[in-house]
Amino acid sequence: MDFDGASYSIDEVLPGAHVDEESYARLTVEAASAADLERLLDNLREAGAVPVVDADAVTQPAPGDGVLPEDFYATTNYVTEVRIGGVWRRVENPEMDCAIVIDAALPRTVAPSDVRGGDAIVVGHTGVKVDRPQRSRRRAVFEFMSSTVSSEKPKEQLIVEVARELRRTLQDGKRVVVVGGPAIVHTGAARYLAELIREGYVNALFAGNALALHDIEAQLFGTSLGVRLSDAFPVEEGHSHHLRAVNRIRALGGIKNAMLQGILRGGIMYEAYKADIPVVLAGSIRDDGPLPEVITDVIEAQRAMREWVPQIGMAIMVCTLLHSIAVGNLLPASCKTICVDINPASVTKLTDRGSTQTIGLVMDAAGFLRELRQALHGEAPAP
Amino acid sequence: MDFDGASYSIDEVLPGAHVDEESYARLTVEAASAADLERLLDNLREAGAVPVVDADAVTQPAPGDGVLPEDFYATTNYVTEVRIGGVWRRVENPEMDCAIVIDAALPRTVAPSDVRGGDAIVVGHTGVKVDRPQRSRRRAVFEFMSSTVSSEKPKEQLIVEVARELRRTLQDGKRVVVVGGPAIVHTGAARYLAELIREGYVNALFAGNALALHDIEAQLFGTSLGVRLSDAFPVEEGHSHHLRAVNRIRALGGIKNAMLQGILRGGIMYEAYKADIPVVLAGSIRDDGPLPEVITDVIEAQRAMREWVPQIGMAIMVCTLLHSIAVGNLLPASCKTICVDINPASVTKLTDRGSTQTIGLVMDAAGFLRELRQALHGEAPAP
Amino acid sequence: MDFDGASYSIDEVLPGAHVDEESYARLTVEAASAADLERLLDNLREAGAVPVVDADAVTQPAPGDGVLPEDFYATTNYVTEVRIGGVWRRVENPEMDCAIVIDAALPRTVAPSDVRGGDAIVVGHTGVKVDRPQRSRRRAVFEFMSSTVSSEKPKEQLIVEVARELRRTLQDGKRVVVVGGPAIVHTGAARYLAELIREGYVNALFAGNALALHDIEAQLFGTSLGVRLSDAFPVEEGHSHHLRAVNRIRALGGIKNAMLQGILRGGIMYEAYKADIPVVLAGSIRDDGPLPEVITDVIEAQRAMREWVPQIGMAIMVCTLLHSIAVGNLLPASCKTICVDINPASVTKLTDRGSTQTIGLVMDAAGFLRELRQALHGEAPAP
Amino acid sequence: MDFDGASYSIDEVLPGAHVDEESYARLTVEAASAADLERLLDNLREAGAVPVVDADAVTQPAPGDGVLPEDFYATTNYVTEVRIGGVWRRVENPEMDCAIVIDAALPRTVAPSDVRGGDAIVVGHTGVKVDRPQRSRRRAVFEFMSSTVSSEKPKEQLIVEVARELRRTLQDGKRVVVVGGPAIVHTGAARYLAELIREGYVNALFAGNALALHDIEAQLFGTSLGVRLSDAFPVEEGHSHHLRAVNRIRALGGIKNAMLQGILRGGIMYEAYKADIPVVLAGSIRDDGPLPEVITDVIEAQRAMREWVPQIGMAIMVCTLLHSIAVGNLLPASCKTICVDINPASVTKLTDRGSTQTIGLVMDAAGFLRELRQALHGEAPAP
Repeated sequence: MDFDGASYSIDEVLPGAHVDEESYARLTVEAASAADLERLLDNLREAGAVPVVDADAVTQPAPGDGVLPEDFYATTNYVTEVRIGGVWRRVENPEMDCAIVIDAALPRTVAPSDVRGGDAIVVGHTGVKVDRPQRSRRRAVFEFMSSTVSSEKPKEQLIVEVARELRRTLQDGKRVVVVGGPAIVHTGAARYLAELIREGYVNALFAGNALALHDIEAQLFGTSLGVRLSDAFPVEEGHSHHLRAVNRIRALGGIKNAMLQGILRGGIMYEAYKADIPVVLAGSIRDDGPLPEVITDVIEAQRAMREWVPQIGMAIMVCTLLHSIAVGNLLPASCKTICVDINPASVTKLTDRGSTQTIGLVMDAAGFLRELRQALHGEAPAP
Repeated sequence: MDFDGASYSIDEVLPGAHVDEESYARLTVEAASAADLERLLDNLREAGAVPVVDADAVTQPAPGDGVLPEDFYATTNYVTEVRIGGVWRRVENPEMDCAIVIDAALPRTVAPSDVRGGDAIVVGHTGVKVDRPQRSRRRAVFEFMSSTVSSEKPKEQLIVEVARELRRTLQDGKRVVVVGGPAIVHTGAARYLAELIREGYVNALFAGNALALHDIEAQLFGTSLGVRLSDAFPVEEGHSHHLRAVNRIRALGGIKNAMLQGILRGGIMYEAYKADIPVVLAGSIRDDGPLPEVITDVIEAQRAMREWVPQIGMAIMVCTLLHSIAVGNLLPASCKTICVDINPASVTKLTDRGSTQTIGLVMDAAGFLRELRQALHGEAPAP
Repeated sequence: MDFDGASYSIDEVLPGAHVDEESYARLTVEAASAADLERLLDNLREAGAVPVVDADAVTQPAPGDGVLPEDFYATTNYVTEVRIGGVWRRVENPEMDCAIVIDAALPRTVAPSDVRGGDAIVVGHTGVKVDRPQRSRRRAVFEFMSSTVSSEKPKEQLIVEVARELRRTLQDGKRVVVVGGPAIVHTGAARYLAELIREGYVNALFAGNALALHDIEAQLFGTSLGVRLSDAFPVEEGHSHHLRAVNRIRALGGIKNAMLQGILRGGIMYEAYKADIPVVLAGSIRDDGPLPEVITDVIEAQRAMREWVPQIGMAIMVCTLLHSIAVGNLLPASCKTICVDINPASVTKLTDRGSTQTIGLVMDAAGFLRELRQALHGEAPAP
Repeated sequence: MDFDGASYSIDEVLPGAHVDEESYARLTVEAASAADLERLLDNLREAGAVPVVDADAVTQPAPGDGVLPEDFYATTNYVTEVRIGGVWRRVENPEMDCAIVIDAALPRTVAPSDVRGGDAIVVGHTGVKVDRPQRSRRRAVFEFMSSTVSSEKPKEQLIVEVARELRRTLQDGKRVVVVGGPAIVHTGAARYLAELIREGYVNALFAGNALALHDIEAQLFGTSLGVRLSDAFPVEEGHSHHLRAVNRIRALGGIKNAMLQGILRGGIMYEAYKADIPVVLAGSIRDDGPLPEVITDVIEAQRAMREWVPQIGMAIMVCTLLHSIAVGNLLPASCKTICVDINPASVTKLTDRGSTQTIGLVMDAAGFLRELRQALHGEAPAP
């Protein structure tokens, strides 16, 4: 922030005299113009300051379907409260880059494409309060790790922590979602993910056509993108295996049918459909086929994922920048997130999104999933 | 290839005695089983050998919409001929990972999702001939460069070659398509691309919501993802600029309307719609908004791009792995392709697709587009 | 920091009432043990707190050549003061990871390998004060940029800022050093660096055998690692050019001799020796040859560079992680540093070293040097 | 190769009529000039052709110490033979980028810096024959893998192959050298490497100061670069641990002494000195300290490594581009080499050096070493 004309005076400071007490300060701020003052106040509000006098949130009707008022309040993914009729109400489903609609005196986020003409949309910052997470004095692993992405860190103990947090998430009655890319299959790690699903450690799966397709190719042909998984050699005519796999599944009317008819008898998709967990396969412009279960309209796919977001307590994102960013956009800041990719730039992009609940691990999919499985099985890392 | 039981004898060799003569050889091959022999013959056919006795292509009817016969012939992106009624017919629109349908005694590729029940689909390899490009003895820049991707290469002269090839493509009456990602805008290179479109050097644009959105954000707010383009500083409230930009365009009924109404007065999208060149904006699962012109169904988006493919003579892919792979899948091997990305892994992934007509450049978007513009303007690189 | 048993009380707070006034606070701290208290005080001192009662620095004699007392104070690269005889004395040559020796009542840093038995080495934190840079309220470009490394930033304007800062450095009578790797030559940018040296913009050069060797190869053979710089094609027998180049220079008795005898007539090394600027070529384990001017003992090479450090006001590090880290270790935090590399991980590694005076640019050497040259020549970026 | 004026005629072709017979062909070649012809013949010789009439190698005396005749033959790392007195003699120690000296009628490579004035140095290509490896018809894993570097490959089975090859190397009485960087320690993998040394699977170690220093830091302080290895948290004052570690070892007179005196009781360096295997620590310009065992003169360090090269049958290069390139330069092409790095560009750089005996694995050090250990212990990858 940069406020040239602004000045302040400190009227009162009551520091918490001890380490566990809150501090209090009252300031008077001045700015060069009314507009500057409003901008300054908005900033202070975002930083957690509470105006001595506050007011209800202001709304304007959406001018049309999928169109917001010009000055709509753009949401963060933090816990947000809106003052309605003098009462602070918590926004139920915090999601970044949305608007807030007030509906029956209650605030909720709405994606721009889902707004309806006439919806009461919050405009400006008045009557909106964001609870940015305070850095706690004792750092937990999720808080510490979010700051730095490096391939040169000891990861075994971190994965043990992730396993612990994963169990805690399930005990809290929340879902653990894996957001995965096809490298899981290419690197030979599909069996680990399949096992984690079968054992109930992973109970939601968001992915694209490619993960599902290569998983099925591996089941039907023993290859992934034509490379034999047992010895990493490319197979004669293997480049067409994924095309034949998708064709066979299309002929059978879908992955689930292929499972029910006993054609598909193992792998990630088999376990996911067998366990009947939420599965969202979102389409992408480079898809072959695609598989019948893939939602080819991307806005529909966003809606399908959004439906499950409230149940998700932990997201494990493995080797897919595209789907990970998409899912990350939907999750509240409070959702614990683990990003695994062999490309540090991808991990940085994913972890550098304002959340203090994100761990980035620069490593290969197979190594991560194998170690996570070991940690969940209570096998100590090698001596 | 690995043929354990196979053996061969060379019956006759007539080498071209001089450097410019063809060579001829006749071989007898044997294999352990009929299946092995068929597999061996398929391979030899793919390598360019012509059976002493050949036969027409065999077809089977597609069992349903979007479903191919199990043994369908999976296409490459090379020039392909199919023998129909004793005559070799060229497949009009070579595209990889498709099937071949014979329609009115002529062969054409068909995407799996576009096949109709009953279509006559080529099965097996019989009667199909692929003209893999021969390595010419004198290497052209496109052939040489395809072999190696390195950030440590002199690029100025290469870009001069690209400029030359680009002019040649336009002179041949073909289109030059740019497939671009938002980094073009983030790095401040939008003005170079806008200029290339305005001047007619680029006459097709395939991209996603993000490129268009940040281009428009830059026009309306002077920022890209909230970063001021004039000095690279993040702007107060800038993180919501792209949301406000998309909302404004949605309120106006689309990018083209915004241009016609004088709200959008410059930039990539403005120039593209003003020049009335083919524009395809394909949706992706991480899109904000999206802009009204974006095709949110990815299979529809593929179809929209495929329609323009026959007119394209050169594809310049800049900083988008997703869209570049998607477009690369649609193009014939003969299409000259330039892949520019700062991430060597992306460039390798794009160039490592069997084409001998691909140049990979590991560099930033702004540097590439500025130099390409200079080269097209006939400005020599600095002394 | 994590102090379990520690507690504090705030005795007095006198906040500066306005934006331009200093604040004052007096705290009482307690810890569980004397050791914890000492550790806590050390931390507060490092953070800028001044004990109400302070004492002189304590020294112990170095037990031998190249050996420090166990508890030696390990330096940062910030401005550091040492209390000697009740007076705070500034350490003349701040350098990280060194010790402080008190010599004739004045403190200076000493590299572990240069300490002599009996030297008076500062131990513990008592009597040592570090002036960590305050974040100024108005951010300068060097401060802002240090926080984020991204390939997706607009760079032209930043390079204009770098050019401005470079001129300022020269006006202040300080040297601008380029620390460069061979990619400068491979990417065809040697002529830009040569020009910057010739024109006096760069007046020190720290590099390795490879930069010098490929620069000379380019002058003698027109190639760099066997790749012809005019068209990027590999040249027949080119792989041995660098070996023949080094051999020719060795036969002539060195680079300078080759210049004086008219054999070497252009390029980076020619301009550097002609301008008689400080040149340090440090050896590395992978060197071919090496050239006679290369200092093959790495500790000697560190000493040779350290000698010039006090004159350096700006360091431009281009495409060499090895030499950049080495030089970065020697520079004070106040030295303005620009790190250019096409690999984001290298840039992150270089900029993530505690300095607020570092700019990281993810781009190719040729693009950077060409734009820097343009900016210094006052040529505006293209319209 | 590009020979404009050249032409050829095929005089005779005797193809091996069956798959296991050699073929024979006799050609007459012509060129535009004597120089072109010589160049053409050189190329054909390199490709394996044998002139119908051949001659002895030609030598010239080295004009001085460290200086070769202008036209010296620059070596490859392939098996090379030199014709001396009508007899083809094999060069004992093939090493790339060297010269060949004929000494007592026997040829050996000599590094440019080790040549003595008057040495008989082979010039030109006459009488020099290089046996480039033929691609065998049945591909072994080392041959296949050399072609492609990708992070998206199944690695478990490959590592099982590496383990098998490693055992074979030891059975053949050759040494397995690990060339390692400090990331081995940072990622918590030191214990795996230490174990491999203790169990005799690794019996030579080439590294730098950093690997040794952080290994010792981990032993003395439990940290690596100040990060606690047990939980990945940075430790108070941890940034000076490596300085204190190196100081302590310097005080004790070296790593070996520290081991003998019971101060150093575990880790990589402890096991290496305890097992008394060849250890070469090569200095680098960015070294802290360095440790007394480090050879600070890089040419001396090359000599120290070169001494052990003839005993090495397999090189495992883990997370150090600098040392890996240095060692790779010294090894013959026949030496099996495994390159492990999380950065694909590093792996590409290492594997792209003409050897058919190199496997590149894009993964983290800890994952690789843990899996290699498992494979050597005969533990099957997880079910």
